[in-house]
Amino acid sequence: MMSMMVTMKVVGLGAVALTVSLELLSWLLSHLRSRRTLNQVLFFPSETACVEHIFTPTSPRFCSCSLPHGVETSFSRLLRHILSASTSLDLCVFSFSNMVLSRAVLLLHSKGVTIRVLTDKDYSAISGSQIGVLREAGGISSCFSVLSTCLSSFTTGRICVRCDKSSTHMHHKFAVVDSRLLITGSLNWTLTAVQNNMENILITEEPDLVKPFIKEFHRMWGLNDPAQNHQNQKLISHGMC
Amino acid sequence: MMSMMVTMKVVGLGAVALTVSLELLSWLLSHLRSRRTLNQVLFFPSETACVEHIFTPTSPRFCSCSLPHGVETSFSRLLRHILSASTSLDLCVFSFSNMVLSRAVLLLHSKGVTIRVLTDKDYSAISGSQIGVLREAGGISSCFSVLSTCLSSFTTGRICVRCDKSSTHMHHKFAVVDSRLLITGSLNWTLTAVQNNMENILITEEPDLVKPFIKEFHRMWGLNDPAQNHQNQKLISHGMC
Repeated sequence: MMSMMVTMKVVGLGAVALTVSLELLSWLLSHLRSRRTLNQVLFFPSETACVEHIFTPTSPRFCSCSLPHGVETSFSRLLRHILSASTSLDLCVFSFSNMVLSRAVLLLHSKGVTIRVLTDKDYSAISGSQIGVLREAGGISSCFSVLSTCLSSFTTGRICVRCDKSSTHMHHKFAVVDSRLLITGSLNWTLTAVQNNMENILITEEPDLVKPFIKEFHRMWGLNDPAQNHQNQKLISHGMC
Repeated sequence: MMSMMVTMKVVGLGAVALTVSLELLSWLLSHLRSRRTLNQVLFFPSETACVEHIFTPTSPRFCSCSLPHGVETSFSRLLRHILSASTSLDLCVFSFSNMVLSRAVLLLHSKGVTIRVLTDKDYSAISGSQIGVLREAGGISSCFSVLSTCLSSFTTGRICVRCDKSSTHMHHKFAVVDSRLLITGSLNWTLTAVQNNMENILITEEPDLVKPFIKEFHRMWGLNDPAQNHQNQKLISHGMC
């Protein structure tokens, strides 16, 4: 009788221990899972600070510029997220004239990251637009010579630029990093937006939010395929888009 | 001996059943929790369709307009989210000229929902802006007579409008419904943005995304308090903002 009671106690305690352990494991896993899903909001105007160390993190050069150093800002955080791309950057932006953001895209390109840029055709031609710089880095002629691969689909380590062909505004301001991270908001990729305006940027890895943007980018990219659009081809060949 | 084995089996089975039940309950709760967190993306331009039934859902009137009826669109979904407000709507928008969205805000106001609108001072004065309509509905004079409550803090069931006093653009386009639901994106509250442009709206209840916007709205609302800003008071008293 005594032995049975001891056994029951042992089994009971074992069951309780097992339940508690499983509960703890479940909580830990769900906690880690929710921790892993990045959700961040950045507000602008951003403080102005030197970002040289973000471009050269492994071999930081001494920077003698007059801007504050070692300050983390909304802009530096945005830059870090963009530069976290290791395979692809899909950028869909109304206006792109910010030279530091352009430098970030060119740096990714030099590392073999595949860049696709979809922009508004009117704003791509305004003074200071970086669209021409990106297109030049991607190589207009080489882009044309591999029309079936680069312009119709996707080639690794390239910058391919397409202009929205509709008569209305392509007013999006979003980027998708490595088909994983969404960067979206009110902020155009201009100096005024970063340094002067009141703007927001939302950064998330939440699949329910990222996936629709990937799908929409894919749809618009296909819609604005120059191979399907003679007017766009003409604009590109004249260096206007 | 036989009795002890039976008891052990019963206790063992009980422990397993308890563990499995707790695991199931935990999974169910976490599943329901993740299901409850709304994350939705809407793309524009929206199809054009009649939205009369959204304004009068309990007593739908026969609508003889020429637009398609019974069609769910990005715009109708956006309207439903705005009209889901039961206590408050904090709106921070660069340009607001869409009359249907204005009607939605006025409907919420008539139901006692407290509305705060923060907008760009330049765009609030352009032709077709709904800011004057909202301010009128809120009551300029009554707003002034209770300056300490309405303009400095918050009064229930009112529309209070403030204009960003800075010389740069207040370029946000977001709304917070009941301090719970965030509506944000590239879309200004204009007819062109809804019907013509390529735009996005992201709708989320994710606290990590909603809370920063609530905090930023609170900060900007305080910064643009007319009680602290004589220039804004002058603009309001002249009906310009």
